[in-house]
Amino acid sequence: MPFIRECIVTTVRENGSTHIAPMGIHDDKGSLVILPFKPSSTLDNLERHGTATLNYTDDVRIYAGCLTGRSDWPTCSTEVIEGMRLENCLAHTELEVTDKIDDPVRPKFFCKTVHEEIHGPYYGYNRAQSAVIELAILVSRLHMLPLAKIHQQIEYLKICVDKTAGPRETEAWGWLMEKVDSFQISNKENLQ
Amino acid sequence: MPFIRECIVTTVRENGSTHIAPMGIHDDKGSLVILPFKPSSTLDNLERHGTATLNYTDDVRIYAGCLTGRSDWPTCSTEVIEGMRLENCLAHTELEVTDKIDDPVRPKFFCKTVHEEIHGPYYGYNRAQSAVIELAILVSRLHMLPLAKIHQQIEYLKICVDKTAGPRETEAWGWLMEKVDSFQISNKENLQ
Repeated sequence: MPFIRECIVTTVRENGSTHIAPMGIHDDKGSLVILPFKPSSTLDNLERHGTATLNYTDDVRIYAGCLTGRSDWPTCSTEVIEGMRLENCLAHTELEVTDKIDDPVRPKFFCKTVHEEIHGPYYGYNRAQSAVIELAILVSRLHMLPLAKIHQQIEYLKICVDKTAGPRETEAWGWLMEKVDSFQISNKENLQ
Repeated sequence: MPFIRECIVTTVRENGSTHIAPMGIHDDKGSLVILPFKPSSTLDNLERHGTATLNYTDDVRIYAGCLTGRSDWPTCSTEVIEGMRLENCLAHTELEVTDKIDDPVRPKFFCKTVHEEIHGPYYGYNRAQSAVIELAILVSRLHMLPLAKIHQQIEYLKICVDKTAGPRETEAWGWLMEKVDSFQISNKENLQ
């Protein structure tokens, strides 16, 4: 398996506005591959526009926000490609699509880096941030995973949040847990 | 609880050589606090020398290595304080101790930043790196945690490694799992 970078991908919509989506980008010995699901806005934008920006932020609220209906995060213009990047990121990479392999589930867009810029220092790992990323992934798969398994994992992740979070991580965790709770309530109602 | 940065702390030994230790640094609204255990080399070095460097690296082999007898990582000179930093880090912070609160278990060293430097771009979260950090913490607590709990957690963390690791994460995971396995063997022998 290739190395996977969890980052925030920004692409240009048909009307020129910015689409923001958290995604796992494959880094295959330096060659970057975006694998959007079919159907998705990122897929449409990549097909039409042929560019994307990878945003590396340590503000996990942006990951949690995109999964809970909060996708209005401040952006600013990219340097080389036409598009926007997150204002609040530690670094970003501007990409051009060079090749594509179609697939019924997840087509592969092979990209080359045309620009990369650093905006701030990385301050090391934070267990609460990693826990939010894990919970975000669990939340995106609520319909596919057994609830007991989800709760067992949340119990462990919660310890990391309680021990090491700052205000941003606590807020992001809260948004995702609201989603877990409301999924459970609607699930129970469907079973009645 | 304050926000905790998991990073690699380098301090100066009495003979001038460099001591490398992974530690959780408390970031209390921008005020950085180092909490070394009693007794420890980092504690002695902080007492004597009054400086430390926080190294932020995405090479998790350095975390796993320090826990498994591999602490000979390349270093180079710091800029402002007298000491060394990791060569392979994305950023580093040079600190001077300004205050101390003694404690029988973990004294607190309050520090001010005297220099900070960026060396490379952060490329976003990687679930395998976070899994290695979690396993490193489990390994440092093998004597305190029930083995069943450790194995349950390793089972989940292993999925993250299998899905998203590159060669560095795979190597770091292997070193830590060797330690888990040898702990189990010696544990069984002690029970016989």
